[in-house]
Amino acid sequence: MSKHIGTYPFVVEPFSEDFTGRLSWRFLGNHLLRCASLHAGSHGFGYDQVNAHRHAWVLSRLVVEMQQMPRTGEHYNVETWVSKIYRQFTDRLFAITAADGSIFGHAHSIWALIDIETRQPIDLTALPEGGFAQAVTNREVPITGAGRVRVKSTEPAHRHTACYSDLDINGHVNSIRYIEMVLDLFGQQIHTERKAVRRIEMSYCAESYIGETLLLFTDPCDDGRHQVEIRKESGEVVVRAAVEFGEA
Amino acid sequence: MSKHIGTYPFVVEPFSEDFTGRLSWRFLGNHLLRCASLHAGSHGFGYDQVNAHRHAWVLSRLVVEMQQMPRTGEHYNVETWVSKIYRQFTDRLFAITAADGSIFGHAHSIWALIDIETRQPIDLTALPEGGFAQAVTNREVPITGAGRVRVKSTEPAHRHTACYSDLDINGHVNSIRYIEMVLDLFGQQIHTERKAVRRIEMSYCAESYIGETLLLFTDPCDDGRHQVEIRKESGEVVVRAAVEFGEA
Repeated sequence: MSKHIGTYPFVVEPFSEDFTGRLSWRFLGNHLLRCASLHAGSHGFGYDQVNAHRHAWVLSRLVVEMQQMPRTGEHYNVETWVSKIYRQFTDRLFAITAADGSIFGHAHSIWALIDIETRQPIDLTALPEGGFAQAVTNREVPITGAGRVRVKSTEPAHRHTACYSDLDINGHVNSIRYIEMVLDLFGQQIHTERKAVRRIEMSYCAESYIGETLLLFTDPCDDGRHQVEIRKESGEVVVRAAVEFGEA
Repeated sequence: MSKHIGTYPFVVEPFSEDFTGRLSWRFLGNHLLRCASLHAGSHGFGYDQVNAHRHAWVLSRLVVEMQQMPRTGEHYNVETWVSKIYRQFTDRLFAITAADGSIFGHAHSIWALIDIETRQPIDLTALPEGGFAQAVTNREVPITGAGRVRVKSTEPAHRHTACYSDLDINGHVNSIRYIEMVLDLFGQQIHTERKAVRRIEMSYCAESYIGETLLLFTDPCDDGRHQVEIRKESGEVVVRAAVEFGEA
């Protein structure tokens, strides 16, 4: 295995599960972000290192596909690596594996590096930060990228005012918190019909802040996906998302 | 130190902080519950052990007072012990300490053991479970118990429909999630005025379930506390709470 693949062990702690007794998407999602950060840090392009150049990483897309979520007390590993560097984006992949090497799921993320002052993307092929290109690892994950999301509904299915507990250390609504907002639209399917969430696609288009009203619109899609758009009252799109269910 | 005091080490992980970069109340609260569970388990009256007798622990009150919250990367210990056993309740105390022994804060909780079928409280002085009375440790914490909460306001300050992401493994709204709901009422003070939450008092009166509407009422109090009641639409009180702020 490439030395540029980071492997981070976890155990499903009590109070990190949803009502089914399996790891919640919030915990999984935040663990993925944490592993991304740890891995970048150990390769010289972590938060502190890029911040020294007045740059910051911004999550642009996240697709997570889980065959199964681990249960309370189960151990799992998050493996992560950088698979591609484009001019303005880089792909980071994840495998979520059990102790015996079997697969819980995979994830695919796309990140941009922005200038903190101008908020403009930095050319990733011309970085002062060392080690970035060297970290690229040629290993794929067997999941497809995010599909197109185009929500036609004009009637919000839910209205949420961004609040204190939505915020993370960056002072904006936490990227993974939007996954919860999206899943909460389908609480009935998840809870009463016992559907398992198999796949989530998130496209992050804008940030939102405390006190802002977020409107959630949803449409079913021909291909079985449920599409969601989270918009501000101005109409600005914050998140485009899609959810797929399977049998629990 | 008594051998019946459990000490559990933690570190503030990235994505477990609020926007100030300090441990969030949600993570702290769930860690307290987890330590309570671990400590009870190691003394013969944990979840699985009481469940064998068709009993279950129910959190009745929780008071947490923090002089300071640890920051990202800081280590802290949760110490917990049983301080009293009444007929229908037991007191469990907590000290949250730094690696050098200095104090982050304390907590005081009250629990009942109920019969799962009848939902009636069990007499804790006449338990089949072993080791319970022996675990009682005569160590106090320097915080006062919960004060009286009587909210007069008849106009809800917030309305929330209990949703999928509110639920824990028990299938009801997580006890600590109510702390977030209460704090979210004061997002303006916490976020804009940079007030630190110093003390939270929670009295748990009823459980709530997915789809139920929760109405949050709040009144300021003469003694500087902010009082909150969370009620169902029927008027049934779910939680009575009080919050105190200090300078950040």
